[in-house]
Amino acid sequence: MTSSLGTLYRIHTFGESHGPGIGVVIDGCPAGLVLDVDHIQNWLTRRRPGQSRLSSQRKEKDKFELLSGLYGGKTLGTPIAALVRNTDSRGKDYDQWAQIYRPSHADYTYHAKYGHRTPHGGGRASVRETIGRVIGGSVAAQVLEKELGIQIISWVDSIGSITSKSFSDPPQSHSQVDASLVRCPDPKASVQMIQLIDEVRKEGDSIGGTIGLAVYNVPPGLGEPVFEKLEAELAKACLSISACKGFESGSGKEATKMKGSEHNDPFYTENGQNEQNIPPNVKTRTNHSGGIQGGITNGMPILIRASFKPTATIFKPQESVEESGKNVTLKASGRHDPCVLPRAVPIVEAMVALVLMDSYLMQRARNPEWWLRYAKEPIKTHSF
Amino acid sequence: MTSSLGTLYRIHTFGESHGPGIGVVIDGCPAGLVLDVDHIQNWLTRRRPGQSRLSSQRKEKDKFELLSGLYGGKTLGTPIAALVRNTDSRGKDYDQWAQIYRPSHADYTYHAKYGHRTPHGGGRASVRETIGRVIGGSVAAQVLEKELGIQIISWVDSIGSITSKSFSDPPQSHSQVDASLVRCPDPKASVQMIQLIDEVRKEGDSIGGTIGLAVYNVPPGLGEPVFEKLEAELAKACLSISACKGFESGSGKEATKMKGSEHNDPFYTENGQNEQNIPPNVKTRTNHSGGIQGGITNGMPILIRASFKPTATIFKPQESVEESGKNVTLKASGRHDPCVLPRAVPIVEAMVALVLMDSYLMQRARNPEWWLRYAKEPIKTHSF
Amino acid sequence: MTSSLGTLYRIHTFGESHGPGIGVVIDGCPAGLVLDVDHIQNWLTRRRPGQSRLSSQRKEKDKFELLSGLYGGKTLGTPIAALVRNTDSRGKDYDQWAQIYRPSHADYTYHAKYGHRTPHGGGRASVRETIGRVIGGSVAAQVLEKELGIQIISWVDSIGSITSKSFSDPPQSHSQVDASLVRCPDPKASVQMIQLIDEVRKEGDSIGGTIGLAVYNVPPGLGEPVFEKLEAELAKACLSISACKGFESGSGKEATKMKGSEHNDPFYTENGQNEQNIPPNVKTRTNHSGGIQGGITNGMPILIRASFKPTATIFKPQESVEESGKNVTLKASGRHDPCVLPRAVPIVEAMVALVLMDSYLMQRARNPEWWLRYAKEPIKTHSF
Amino acid sequence: MTSSLGTLYRIHTFGESHGPGIGVVIDGCPAGLVLDVDHIQNWLTRRRPGQSRLSSQRKEKDKFELLSGLYGGKTLGTPIAALVRNTDSRGKDYDQWAQIYRPSHADYTYHAKYGHRTPHGGGRASVRETIGRVIGGSVAAQVLEKELGIQIISWVDSIGSITSKSFSDPPQSHSQVDASLVRCPDPKASVQMIQLIDEVRKEGDSIGGTIGLAVYNVPPGLGEPVFEKLEAELAKACLSISACKGFESGSGKEATKMKGSEHNDPFYTENGQNEQNIPPNVKTRTNHSGGIQGGITNGMPILIRASFKPTATIFKPQESVEESGKNVTLKASGRHDPCVLPRAVPIVEAMVALVLMDSYLMQRARNPEWWLRYAKEPIKTHSF
Repeated sequence: MTSSLGTLYRIHTFGESHGPGIGVVIDGCPAGLVLDVDHIQNWLTRRRPGQSRLSSQRKEKDKFELLSGLYGGKTLGTPIAALVRNTDSRGKDYDQWAQIYRPSHADYTYHAKYGHRTPHGGGRASVRETIGRVIGGSVAAQVLEKELGIQIISWVDSIGSITSKSFSDPPQSHSQVDASLVRCPDPKASVQMIQLIDEVRKEGDSIGGTIGLAVYNVPPGLGEPVFEKLEAELAKACLSISACKGFESGSGKEATKMKGSEHNDPFYTENGQNEQNIPPNVKTRTNHSGGIQGGITNGMPILIRASFKPTATIFKPQESVEESGKNVTLKASGRHDPCVLPRAVPIVEAMVALVLMDSYLMQRARNPEWWLRYAKEPIKTHSF
Repeated sequence: MTSSLGTLYRIHTFGESHGPGIGVVIDGCPAGLVLDVDHIQNWLTRRRPGQSRLSSQRKEKDKFELLSGLYGGKTLGTPIAALVRNTDSRGKDYDQWAQIYRPSHADYTYHAKYGHRTPHGGGRASVRETIGRVIGGSVAAQVLEKELGIQIISWVDSIGSITSKSFSDPPQSHSQVDASLVRCPDPKASVQMIQLIDEVRKEGDSIGGTIGLAVYNVPPGLGEPVFEKLEAELAKACLSISACKGFESGSGKEATKMKGSEHNDPFYTENGQNEQNIPPNVKTRTNHSGGIQGGITNGMPILIRASFKPTATIFKPQESVEESGKNVTLKASGRHDPCVLPRAVPIVEAMVALVLMDSYLMQRARNPEWWLRYAKEPIKTHSF
Repeated sequence: MTSSLGTLYRIHTFGESHGPGIGVVIDGCPAGLVLDVDHIQNWLTRRRPGQSRLSSQRKEKDKFELLSGLYGGKTLGTPIAALVRNTDSRGKDYDQWAQIYRPSHADYTYHAKYGHRTPHGGGRASVRETIGRVIGGSVAAQVLEKELGIQIISWVDSIGSITSKSFSDPPQSHSQVDASLVRCPDPKASVQMIQLIDEVRKEGDSIGGTIGLAVYNVPPGLGEPVFEKLEAELAKACLSISACKGFESGSGKEATKMKGSEHNDPFYTENGQNEQNIPPNVKTRTNHSGGIQGGITNGMPILIRASFKPTATIFKPQESVEESGKNVTLKASGRHDPCVLPRAVPIVEAMVALVLMDSYLMQRARNPEWWLRYAKEPIKTHSF
Repeated sequence: MTSSLGTLYRIHTFGESHGPGIGVVIDGCPAGLVLDVDHIQNWLTRRRPGQSRLSSQRKEKDKFELLSGLYGGKTLGTPIAALVRNTDSRGKDYDQWAQIYRPSHADYTYHAKYGHRTPHGGGRASVRETIGRVIGGSVAAQVLEKELGIQIISWVDSIGSITSKSFSDPPQSHSQVDASLVRCPDPKASVQMIQLIDEVRKEGDSIGGTIGLAVYNVPPGLGEPVFEKLEAELAKACLSISACKGFESGSGKEATKMKGSEHNDPFYTENGQNEQNIPPNVKTRTNHSGGIQGGITNGMPILIRASFKPTATIFKPQESVEESGKNVTLKASGRHDPCVLPRAVPIVEAMVALVLMDSYLMQRARNPEWWLRYAKEPIKTHSF
């Protein structure tokens, strides 16, 4: 019933697309972190509209103000509130079809749920709502990197029928990803994707695609065992992003076609019996598990994919219905994202950072001996 | 950090595979429900091992005892506790490889997380843990059917490379599904699936597959708008089942290849402007949204799919590691499920019932006027 | 671990005493409420410092800005965020004793907990943190009054050894309370209280006291049965206010001296057997239960009291310790509240409104038939 | 809405007074604890009815069965479920007044809330519900003692008008308390209390009283800063026990009569500037704060009191109402507790253990450096 995510590290987001502003309260960030505000702004800038010809032309700088939670540049352990003002909202653009339920938008379902809705830009269903997620995710990512050495790298894996080779050879840095206008680290696919988006934009249409994501240097033992399995929380986090229609962990849908003897990931240790620690640091020959077994990380990289449908706002005529029940034709105009995938990259990273951060604090609560082994002086367990 | 699911309708499960028993506490069930205990037992029986040659030969009747929450056969509104004793556990079967981490099981990750684990049947990571889910789901399904007319029907949609035609023509009853030994309502695919499972069983191997699920007679307005979007909660619920590697809502992964003009679901009303209610009862020409838009139901059937990997227990030699760090070869024996999909059908139904029930209570809290319209005398909004 | 209160109607507060501002995100407010912003401002004004010579002379207008959750003056059902900027913070006042732990303040405990703290005005431990509570409570009170006819009236019941007669004859309106500078509706006690506060102010000292509170027109059935009994949640809500050291429900501490035959509240109905409703609307001859039995309201007025210690900031020399461990003498100066009681009145009202609102939404979720009987057309069940 | 308490260490209780049994699921207990089952049974035995002539004569051994969460005598970190069967329930005793709402019981309020109730022994409102609390509290107390050296000692502080001297000189061991039949460590008061209870028992009446509680060896830094202040959670925990009407932390209600210069607790260190740790280990000259400042422990003993009303079950004629609305006279008989205080001692201890355990896990999550300092090799910070 709420706009909150997380148990120990939690964010509370607020704000409508065309209201005064969008913001977040981050609760549970440990005290003493020297907050890197440029890191936050960088993540917001990768998310904002108008950053290239491939995204919506709404002009928002998405500059944020910190309202609480800091003293002397360090976190106090108290709630960190941040606010981004809306500066280029054009509510009037929506007045002409205010009574019409836009197909595959949330207009109708909000009306049925609340009995009252704003017709301006979808209100809270707008992708602007993700600003708070990205701010909260940036702060989480800073803690995870500092204390565990964790790196979260996301990319555009496919657009329409154009599929990259990145999932079997995932990028190791954000710069590899951002070198492409469409954030696909596979150069050949990148060129084709840009061309495809340009085409659908000219048609007033939109196109879907897939986000890939890898997490490196993950210690074993993160994630909960039953309902809050790490894949389960990651799936929820991804599907909570507008337009996301599917989630895969590791082998994902391919796993359905495999036999156990093909899919199981054999364990091995590099230094055999000489291991002093119990349990030993293991590796797996393959990583169909995507770094997670029984809901808990095994030390191998986390690998996931999220499927996004084409954005619902298009400029072609569409059959629809008015609030009164009258059947009508809708012909929209204005600003839109022909393909939301490039902007979704930092959003998916943020969601994954939020989930991992919460898991990390949970595990600290449960087993401080674990923390002594894996976090106090972070062990970089595995990379490819 | 917990074995709990749900906010208003919540279950707390307990029990290990080879401990005294498995159980659940159901909290939040409304008072006054005449509880159908046969419904619960029927769901448990569809889930239990040993029900056919296609599943594990562990002999468990899975009879349950109700410990609380009822007076005169009716729910009191207080916690309903139920217990199933383990009767055919064979802990000794596991002693021979107690020190070895079975590949793609949760042995290693539990050890890394807790520093202590049971080697007997995976303990809490066993599929026996789902007994409590199924009991809780059965009670939820009873309320949903009685008050809203909701029907939840799940089936085996694919096994290995054998894909049924059921997702585009989903079954409308449990009997359609249970007519097949493998719970696939497409007769041609069913025969092939049974043959394939028999083969992998003889090989000592296992095979993955896909579960499809449809929910009928869903009123619009269920589900939460931001982090707890209905797809997000359904994804979490599915991925929280052992061996689930992927989730799709409506068009799912196919959506990534589509244009907005293809994917958007046009709205229409059957009786046009004569509609007296605001908002009107709408339908959509297509249902790529799978009945959910902006995280909230629109009145069309909910359609989802879940991908399951092959079960990790196989009888072929596998490379692995001992607790000491020594590299070894594991050759397992005992009882196993060559294909978990037929038994997963009632589990997925239970998880969906749990999520919908919680959403329903949330919506009653938020908007009693909604309840007056859609639930007091349930409107059967849509079927195919 | 969080700055959040409530399950279905919940507030998330943020902000430090001497940071940029203080605020709140209110989540779970039903849609369609015509928000009365004057009501909110009025509650804030009753809470703010500098409102009379009896309170701290810090000059804060405590004007709030609404950042989200409204369209056309009505709530959208989405989070309502509100911000109050700090305008008269004087961080420098605190620099001289920044290294000293002020006795009976939270300086030392925050340091031990977080390892890092702000020396400016107690940061989050300041009474300014209650601004968000008061905003959230005002919105809750508006819903409770509109839908149930509920009235929440709090007053200063005692200061030091001066005890009013109000608890056995509680005020029925805010104006009765606000007619007194010290918010005590007993005129004789009020005069003495003002005199006492003036004295301790001149001495540079402070004084404690008791808040009384009554809730009228409460329907039976609010509150949860086990851990979340209504008295339990009210006790938590009161004790979560800085300086609160005790809580009493109904007869409170006096109950410990009574026999069951004295304390039990006899039930009766006014119209006897002619009652058409099951259960009947009952009254009790006495109200030692304070309107709550088994954690659930019985329809009689809720009656509670909260004990407040004297504020810790005084201007007399005090023994204390520096961060380095050195024993020192502290001689504070600046601005302080000689008696926090008059300002605590709206804070306690706000906390009670928050708890009742959450209980009300819980009960709507649980039992919509209850809502049809007691809330749809609110029944004013009882007053004195 | 639930029968759950706690966030990280949480219990879920179930069971009615006259149903098959009463139980608890404990979730969040760290792995690796060698569980002391005698400790649990000892706590249950101190709580059970029939333990002396001062308590109800219902004969229940209250033997418990562990259903999950252990392997080799050690906790697995998974849910620990425990069940106590009801063996001496006499539902028939209640049939004669099944239609009558017993005054100051929960009969009427449950009916109004749920629309359906059991007339047998109050169902879930019975004090038998506390069995699960005591089991969960015993496990918590074991962890707290082992890891932090914490001791929780509760006693009967007053009965009726007979007040002990124990609050200003609290007992240091359970044996000091249990040496008295009425669990009052002040020998003179103990004799008078026993005499008083015998009198009211003969009269068929009941009597109230006060529980005192001290916690020793508490490290500084436990408790949350805003809504979940430690006093707030302790207050909720106490008021959630049936018949509890009031709560006081430290000075409690006496604080309302004091000036700041009297009430403030001066800080000092014993070894002055030589302290190597930041923050230093401090003591306070007085302990009006009851070991808690700003909601967080300061290292001094926690001191609280809880007020209990006389039990509602008495054998004198009482005015009441039937479900039909008819005014009637109730003359009860059967078994009852003339004074619940002696049995409340272990219940209050259990509630405090539950709250402290949750706070401890929260603090481990927040600040592992704190854990290294205060818990890894527990520092016994303070006793009297």
